[in-house]
Amino acid sequence: MTHILKLRAGKRNEEIRVEAGSRVMDAISALDPSLIDAPCGGKALCGKCRIRLVGGRLTAPEERESRLLSAAELSAGLRLACLARFEGDAEIELPARGEASIITAGPKAAVDRDPPVRLVVVAPSEPSLEAQSDDEARLLAALALELGRQGAPELAPGRVDLAALPGLARCMREGSVEAVVADGRVLSAVPARPGARQLGLGVDLGTTTVVAYLVDLSTGERLATASELNSQRSFGADVISRIEAAADAECLEVLRSRITSQIAAMARDLVRAQSRAQEDLVAMAIAGNTTMLHLLAGAPPGAIALSPFAPAFLARRIEGAAALGLSGHPGCAAILLPGVSAYVGADIVAGIAAIGLHEAPGRSLFLDLGTNGEIAFGGSAGIVCCATAAGPAFEGAGIEKGSGGVEGAIDSVWVDGGSLRFSTIGGAPATGICGSGLVDALAAFLDCRIVDDTGRVVDAGEAAALPSALAALVDQGPRGPLVFLDRQRGIYLSQADIRAAQLAKAAIAAGIDTLLKLEGIGSGEVDRLYLAGGFGSLLDVRSAARIGLFPASLVDRVIVVGNASGAGATAACLSRSRLADCDRARAACAYVELSSRPDFNEAYIERMMFPEKA
Amino acid sequence: MTHILKLRAGKRNEEIRVEAGSRVMDAISALDPSLIDAPCGGKALCGKCRIRLVGGRLTAPEERESRLLSAAELSAGLRLACLARFEGDAEIELPARGEASIITAGPKAAVDRDPPVRLVVVAPSEPSLEAQSDDEARLLAALALELGRQGAPELAPGRVDLAALPGLARCMREGSVEAVVADGRVLSAVPARPGARQLGLGVDLGTTTVVAYLVDLSTGERLATASELNSQRSFGADVISRIEAAADAECLEVLRSRITSQIAAMARDLVRAQSRAQEDLVAMAIAGNTTMLHLLAGAPPGAIALSPFAPAFLARRIEGAAALGLSGHPGCAAILLPGVSAYVGADIVAGIAAIGLHEAPGRSLFLDLGTNGEIAFGGSAGIVCCATAAGPAFEGAGIEKGSGGVEGAIDSVWVDGGSLRFSTIGGAPATGICGSGLVDALAAFLDCRIVDDTGRVVDAGEAAALPSALAALVDQGPRGPLVFLDRQRGIYLSQADIRAAQLAKAAIAAGIDTLLKLEGIGSGEVDRLYLAGGFGSLLDVRSAARIGLFPASLVDRVIVVGNASGAGATAACLSRSRLADCDRARAACAYVELSSRPDFNEAYIERMMFPEKA
Repeated sequence: MTHILKLRAGKRNEEIRVEAGSRVMDAISALDPSLIDAPCGGKALCGKCRIRLVGGRLTAPEERESRLLSAAELSAGLRLACLARFEGDAEIELPARGEASIITAGPKAAVDRDPPVRLVVVAPSEPSLEAQSDDEARLLAALALELGRQGAPELAPGRVDLAALPGLARCMREGSVEAVVADGRVLSAVPARPGARQLGLGVDLGTTTVVAYLVDLSTGERLATASELNSQRSFGADVISRIEAAADAECLEVLRSRITSQIAAMARDLVRAQSRAQEDLVAMAIAGNTTMLHLLAGAPPGAIALSPFAPAFLARRIEGAAALGLSGHPGCAAILLPGVSAYVGADIVAGIAAIGLHEAPGRSLFLDLGTNGEIAFGGSAGIVCCATAAGPAFEGAGIEKGSGGVEGAIDSVWVDGGSLRFSTIGGAPATGICGSGLVDALAAFLDCRIVDDTGRVVDAGEAAALPSALAALVDQGPRGPLVFLDRQRGIYLSQADIRAAQLAKAAIAAGIDTLLKLEGIGSGEVDRLYLAGGFGSLLDVRSAARIGLFPASLVDRVIVVGNASGAGATAACLSRSRLADCDRARAACAYVELSSRPDFNEAYIERMMFPEKA
Repeated sequence: MTHILKLRAGKRNEEIRVEAGSRVMDAISALDPSLIDAPCGGKALCGKCRIRLVGGRLTAPEERESRLLSAAELSAGLRLACLARFEGDAEIELPARGEASIITAGPKAAVDRDPPVRLVVVAPSEPSLEAQSDDEARLLAALALELGRQGAPELAPGRVDLAALPGLARCMREGSVEAVVADGRVLSAVPARPGARQLGLGVDLGTTTVVAYLVDLSTGERLATASELNSQRSFGADVISRIEAAADAECLEVLRSRITSQIAAMARDLVRAQSRAQEDLVAMAIAGNTTMLHLLAGAPPGAIALSPFAPAFLARRIEGAAALGLSGHPGCAAILLPGVSAYVGADIVAGIAAIGLHEAPGRSLFLDLGTNGEIAFGGSAGIVCCATAAGPAFEGAGIEKGSGGVEGAIDSVWVDGGSLRFSTIGGAPATGICGSGLVDALAAFLDCRIVDDTGRVVDAGEAAALPSALAALVDQGPRGPLVFLDRQRGIYLSQADIRAAQLAKAAIAAGIDTLLKLEGIGSGEVDRLYLAGGFGSLLDVRSAARIGLFPASLVDRVIVVGNASGAGATAACLSRSRLADCDRARAACAYVELSSRPDFNEAYIERMMFPEKA
């Protein structure tokens, strides 16, 4: 049986037949994948694939959908395309698409389209026998005029790069010239292609995941997103193991070429899927932690792992993408965003810039939870920041039954009367526990007193005092106690897993304490808590506060900002002022080294305990 | 039999045994080749290997030596080391050596040592756990300080090149760092080498010959010179044939790599001969005609051969030498000097800058005679310049028995009573006629009326009226009349050869006429005539005026400046202000295209005639 779907997307109206019971996402993607925004790949994780049901019938919201959308949103007809299915004919409206969506603290919700790298088409003056001049001079003159007209005289280039000279000599006698201009340089000059567009790519280069956002630099429109696991993972899950591997120069070269090849391939696929020419891609802005950017640039990262943690470079760089081994237009420029220190990298700076923390009134906390928990605190008056070695527990690594956010991962755990309940990603049989599930489970264990406030799993005697359904979850493994979430499938958290999570949350909580204390601020005086990163977006905020990841007083002040790093990189690609924001954000940040601070160590030990039940 | 040579060179005193009858040059070179300056390779062409006989006995000056030294110089004891031989014990003083010697019109006889590319050794601050900073930031800070101390804050770099990042990361924890700084960039950073020097190379990249001058950037001392035939010659003797070859992209790449390999090899040999490390070579400044610089940069030169003659680039460039395929320090910089137009290239600009024409009082002519005769006229009030397609006749090409300046080439011809006499290079049996011999021969033919003022060789009847020794020189070849210089060895000039020389001299003379007329100046008002280039240095000035190459009124105002292009390049390597002089000289030059000017064509036809005997 089929139904009729009427689809409105901006000025576009479509009417298509859809299978009864099929997912809304699949129907829309089949029509045009760029219409739907699904950073998590349609796994009901990100809550980004919002649509509005204008009329007709979809399946009722299931529980996970209700968690990702507010009651107000649901009553306004908003639904998630990855979960809703057709139950009859339906009329659906897609929300207006723009830049990478991000909740901002500052005044910069919209990105002005004033890209730092431009593809400029000009018709240089003809050379004449009387007034002889060289191609370079005539091109530069034409570009200066055109950039002035575009309101970007600051981009007017001073020279044509050596690598661009062969192309220049070949194109200047063929009418219009298409030049890529960045950083006061002409990176390439080739004959103008009819219908050329200028595309940009914002890249969040994570240790675990690489996310790339393709945008149209002329319109600001976000065209498509791709997300892949970092292809360097076989060298180790965390930055330290990558750094160790890169001590060998050959290995460094392998790491470098892996990531450049991967980004190049992602870029190629994204551009191809839009039926655009590879030459349309003229700019990439790359945010990543300091180690990732070193590996990308082929700079040995060894010193990042050794006190006093002095990386080779931190300042923003604009390079020819080809020089880095990346693809795109022959003159494609790669902007490596600036970082603050070895462990507060360009990803954090891009995130801070994206939300405008460096310009925000009041005092905000910014928390990016990944392998390292990076914390920034402040606002327009200045920012202090630090990194805590939280370890990869919240990413599911180092946890016996831990898992990434894949189908079957337990992503939510809650107490239902006298027993524990959980949900898995995709509703599949449980295969492991992802970060948000870990935090939920811990909070539930604490609430049920399966784990005491020192993090110890109750012994058999104590378990006997619990409701029987809970007592049944506790068991003795070969290396200590276990708490089962799904006994049938053998999914549990061990005492060691709980200790790992406990150390991670203590590090983050102590980092927060240290920054607040340094600034003489109590947690009650913090205006907002921005949670960035994939884990931060999925986290149940109350569970996180329950285990003491951050002060309970901040629960109502949490703003989940998603991939702020990717949003910052994408904005930097689109706008010179947003790129400049990254430099300003970097300059605003004072780095605080925690490892040498007695007050941090004290706070760390103190925060090892779980909070009493509120 | 041996004699004793006492040698004084600056502060150095040597006493060595020398073979009786051996050349002074050979004895000194055996001791230390850098002591003697012989751009022509000891072939008695350049007159540069001057020594002063303080006491003892050398062979008496032979005729060629008397031509290359003035009577005053000879009486002051000056001799040429390539010609003088030991006849007894001798005490010899070597003149003080400095920069590439060049007679200047302006105030800049000496070159200030303020190199635009520097090897700077610094000890960057140690990173600390408290004040974490990256290697790049600490290196830049240390360099800014040190460059300020050296009085060159303008060189303070703004960034470390991508290619230098790996080296940077590796050297910053090993004490002192040796950085190459140019153009506001750090081109390399490596661990400081004890005893590192900074050497520079001035290169005159000619279509026919490549000359390289190795200098010590710290002392300004010229260490050694090398000269080789351009390895691209197999693609044709003149720029046009090279341009045609380069129309094929693969061929362009071959041309590019030939010349870069050649310069790299010359640099390597020069540095090695000084027992210096290859890493000591940090800068090259390259002057060459516009085509040669295009081939060096890998830029297609095709448009140089096609009206309206728009080359790809003319402005000065500073590139990493490695990016061009050149050798030296990993951070060695290559400065490509600026040119005025397709046919008035960086070689002419460097020459003008070297003699300071753009700052000189009064009105001077500057003439660089090679395949193209480039002419500049003016002074501090401005310069007009042009290029004439003189053809390679004066370089011995296109002349049946023509030859370069090699042993056996007839380099001088004169009338001795009723017969012609000639000398050859090295006194060897005649094998051909080089440029200066050609001009001398033509002048002699005109004086003897073997050739009339239209350039026609007399016929048999007219020859019969000449003195018998002269009449015997005229003969009939298969393609027209011949005039023999050495009948035994079959060395002659044909009517066609004479026509070729006639066209060449007419082009140059008409170019001079056009520039003077344009400025409203009569030839009597010209203050100086600078003759640059190898041919210009060897030319008999009176013979040149006799055939009408330039106005006879200028004979007494001629200043022979030798390889002004090489001197300009070398000076640019040593001094920022001399490099800036090249830019100023370029800016001062207004290019005059002769091919489209009726007055040039008129002058050209007029100058086809040879002048009447004065």
